[in-house]
Amino acid sequence: MAFRSQLVAPRWLWSNAATPALRSASRGYMGYSREQRCGLATAVPPVTQDVTGSKGPTAMVFMNMGGPSTTDQVEDFLSRLFSDGDLIPLGRLQSYIGPLLARRRTPKIQKQYADIGGGSPIRKWSEYQCEEMCKILDKISPETAPHKPYVAFRYAAPLTETMYNQLLEDGFGNGKGGRAVAFTQYPQYSCSTTGSSLNELWKWRTRLEGKRSNGEVDPTGTIQWSVIDRWPTHSGLVEAFAQNIEAQLKTYPEDKRDQVVLLFSAHSLPMSVVNRGDPYPAEVAATVHAVMQRLKFKNPYRLCWQSQVGPSAWLGAQTQDTVMEYVKRGQSDLILVPIAFTSDHIETLYELDLEVMEEANSPGVKRAESLNGNPTFIQALADVAHAHLQKGELCSPR
Amino acid sequence: MAFRSQLVAPRWLWSNAATPALRSASRGYMGYSREQRCGLATAVPPVTQDVTGSKGPTAMVFMNMGGPSTTDQVEDFLSRLFSDGDLIPLGRLQSYIGPLLARRRTPKIQKQYADIGGGSPIRKWSEYQCEEMCKILDKISPETAPHKPYVAFRYAAPLTETMYNQLLEDGFGNGKGGRAVAFTQYPQYSCSTTGSSLNELWKWRTRLEGKRSNGEVDPTGTIQWSVIDRWPTHSGLVEAFAQNIEAQLKTYPEDKRDQVVLLFSAHSLPMSVVNRGDPYPAEVAATVHAVMQRLKFKNPYRLCWQSQVGPSAWLGAQTQDTVMEYVKRGQSDLILVPIAFTSDHIETLYELDLEVMEEANSPGVKRAESLNGNPTFIQALADVAHAHLQKGELCSPR
Repeated sequence: MAFRSQLVAPRWLWSNAATPALRSASRGYMGYSREQRCGLATAVPPVTQDVTGSKGPTAMVFMNMGGPSTTDQVEDFLSRLFSDGDLIPLGRLQSYIGPLLARRRTPKIQKQYADIGGGSPIRKWSEYQCEEMCKILDKISPETAPHKPYVAFRYAAPLTETMYNQLLEDGFGNGKGGRAVAFTQYPQYSCSTTGSSLNELWKWRTRLEGKRSNGEVDPTGTIQWSVIDRWPTHSGLVEAFAQNIEAQLKTYPEDKRDQVVLLFSAHSLPMSVVNRGDPYPAEVAATVHAVMQRLKFKNPYRLCWQSQVGPSAWLGAQTQDTVMEYVKRGQSDLILVPIAFTSDHIETLYELDLEVMEEANSPGVKRAESLNGNPTFIQALADVAHAHLQKGELCSPR
Repeated sequence: MAFRSQLVAPRWLWSNAATPALRSASRGYMGYSREQRCGLATAVPPVTQDVTGSKGPTAMVFMNMGGPSTTDQVEDFLSRLFSDGDLIPLGRLQSYIGPLLARRRTPKIQKQYADIGGGSPIRKWSEYQCEEMCKILDKISPETAPHKPYVAFRYAAPLTETMYNQLLEDGFGNGKGGRAVAFTQYPQYSCSTTGSSLNELWKWRTRLEGKRSNGEVDPTGTIQWSVIDRWPTHSGLVEAFAQNIEAQLKTYPEDKRDQVVLLFSAHSLPMSVVNRGDPYPAEVAATVHAVMQRLKFKNPYRLCWQSQVGPSAWLGAQTQDTVMEYVKRGQSDLILVPIAFTSDHIETLYELDLEVMEEANSPGVKRAESLNGNPTFIQALADVAHAHLQKGELCSPR
C-alpha cells in the first residue's frame, strides 16, 4: 500500500504510561458488550486510552468491508465474507459452509466485477479519502498532527492484520504507545458491518499486543485506540449527499424537477438481524430524513433496501421492485441515491447502474453520484474526526 | 360532543367560486394516488382548495384511530377496526371475517379497558388538545380565525360521518364553502393509519357533498379541505417528547442518570405493510433521532416495536422482549418512551404500564408521560397548523 509505506519518524511517538481505564469502548447502548449483543461466543477485552495525554502522531484507520481489486481476488473475498458470523450467521459449521458457498458464487460475482471494469474501486477511494482527510486534519488539528492514513478492510486487502502490523512497523505500540482512531466508513452502525470490523480489530489487537489482564487496563506502551462508530446525520455528510442529488436533479427539465422521486437505497439486512434490534434501519432513516430536511422536502422520496440474497426474510421494500412499480405506473423520473455507503462498489456500479437501470429501461431513471472523492465529503470526514479528537471520547454512548 | 355543539354564525362562511384544481391532495410521494399505493380497489377523487381566498372561519379536524370510551363500546370499536382493510388486510371476506374476529376478542379487550379505568382517554385528550390549539390559533393566526375544533375517529365515536354532518350543520359546505383542515394526530405517516383516516374522509365527502365530476374540481360551495399528513420531526413535538423524558430521567440518582436506557416504543406494522414501502418505520426513526439530538445523545437508546398480533411476521425488535433482555442482563434502569402516539391509550396504559412493567418487575423500569395535555405539545400543534395555514399547501409533497 503506497500510501502507508512512507517512513515514520520516531518523533511521532510518545511514552504511554499505564492508564486507568476511562471507559469500555466496546460497551454498547445495551449496557452489555457489543460482542454479547451480536451473539458472539468470545467477549473481547475493551479498548481504553489516556485521552489526557493526547498528542500527535495519530493513526487514522478507515474501516470498511472492502472489495476485490481484481477478479482473481473474488473467491478469497467471498470466502471471508461468508465465514463472518457477524454478517451472515450460519451457525457452528460457518467455517466449513462459508468457503463452499463462496466457491459456488465466485464465477457469477467475478463476472459482475468484470462488468464494472475488473474490480472494486473501494480501495482506491478509501486510500484517497483517508489521505486527503489527514492533510486537512494536519491543518485544523495541529495538536494531534501528524495524522497518518491507514485502511483496514474486513474481507479484502488491506486486511485488519496487515494494517495492524503496519502500525507496529511504523512505530506505534511496542512499548511506545501512540494514538489510533478506528473510523468506521459505514455512517450508520450495524452489528454486521461496523460491529464486525471492531470485533476483528479487537481480535488482532489481542493477538498482536496481548490480552488486557483485567479486561480494562491497557498494558503499558500499547496502541491507544478510540472509535468513531457512527455519524449518520453529520451536517457535512448530509450536505455532500444533498449536493450530489441537486446536481442530478439539474439534469431534468425545470418544470419536471420537483416531481422527480428520490429513491434512497441502502443495503438490506436479514429480518433476523433487524428483529434482534440492530440500530442500522433507524440510523439509515435518520440520514434520509436529514438529507430531505436539507433539501426542504421539495421532492417526493422513499427509502428502500437492496441486495438481499437467499431464501430468508429481509427488510423491504426492495429497491428493484420499487423502481419497477414506479415505472409501471408512469413515474419514470427518479433518482437512485445510495445512502449507506460512501464510495462506489458492486452494489452501485453493477446492481443499480446495470441491473436496475437496464430493467427499468427509461432515460428518466438516474443515479446520484457516490461520494467518492467529493471535497465536501472529505471535509466532512475531517470535521467528524476533528470533533472526535477534541472531545476525547472513546466511542458514542450507544 | 360538547365542544362541537356551539352555534356557528353564518358570517364565518364565504362564497366558494369553482376553483381550478391546484393539486391533487391525494397524490402521494409515489406519483400515483395514495389509494393505489395502499392497494385499495376504489380510487377516491382528490380534495382541492382555493388557497388564495383563505380566510376564517377554519374548521380544524383532528383525525385519529380513537378508542372505546366505555367497555360497552369495545365490540363496535373492534368490529370497525378488523373491518378496515387499510389497517388489517383480510381480503375479500373482510366484512364477514372482521366482525367475527372482533366478537372473539371482545371479552379479553373489555377486561383490558376495565383494568385501565373503564375506557380509553383518547377522546377526552383529543377534544382538549384541539380546543386548546384553536384558542392559540385564534391569537397567532387572526386572518384564519375563528378556528373551530372537531375530532374524527376511525373506529370510535365521534366517527368521520358524525364530524362531517356536524360540519355541514355548523354552516360549512352546502353552497357556502368554508375551509377545513384535516390534521392527522399520527405524527408519522402510515397507509394503515393516516391513510385509512383520509380514505374514510374522502368517502364521506363524496357521499355527503357529491362526486367531483372530473376528479379534480370541487363543486361550488363545498367544503375546501387541506391536509396535514405528517409532522414527525417538528421542533415543538420533539421538544415536548424531550421534556417528558428529562422529567423522568430526573427521578433517577444523578450518578446513574446518564446510563439509563431510553427505549422508544412505537406500534409495530406487519412486514407485508413494511415491505410494500410504508413510510412509517423511517418516519418513526426520524422522530427518535431528532429527540436524541435534542437530548445531545447523552443516554444509550433504542427503537423497538410493540403490540404485534397474530401469527404473521411483524417488524421488530419487540418492546417486551427487549425490556426483558435488558433486565436479564442487569440493565434495569430504563425509560419506555411512547413515540408514535400523542396521548394515552390501551398500548401505553395497559400494555406498557401493566403488562411490560409487571413482567419486568423492577423499580428502574419506568415510562415517560404521554403528551396528553402538555402545553409545549399543544403549542407545537398550533405551530404546525399555523405554518400549514400560512403556506396554503394542500398536503406534503410525499
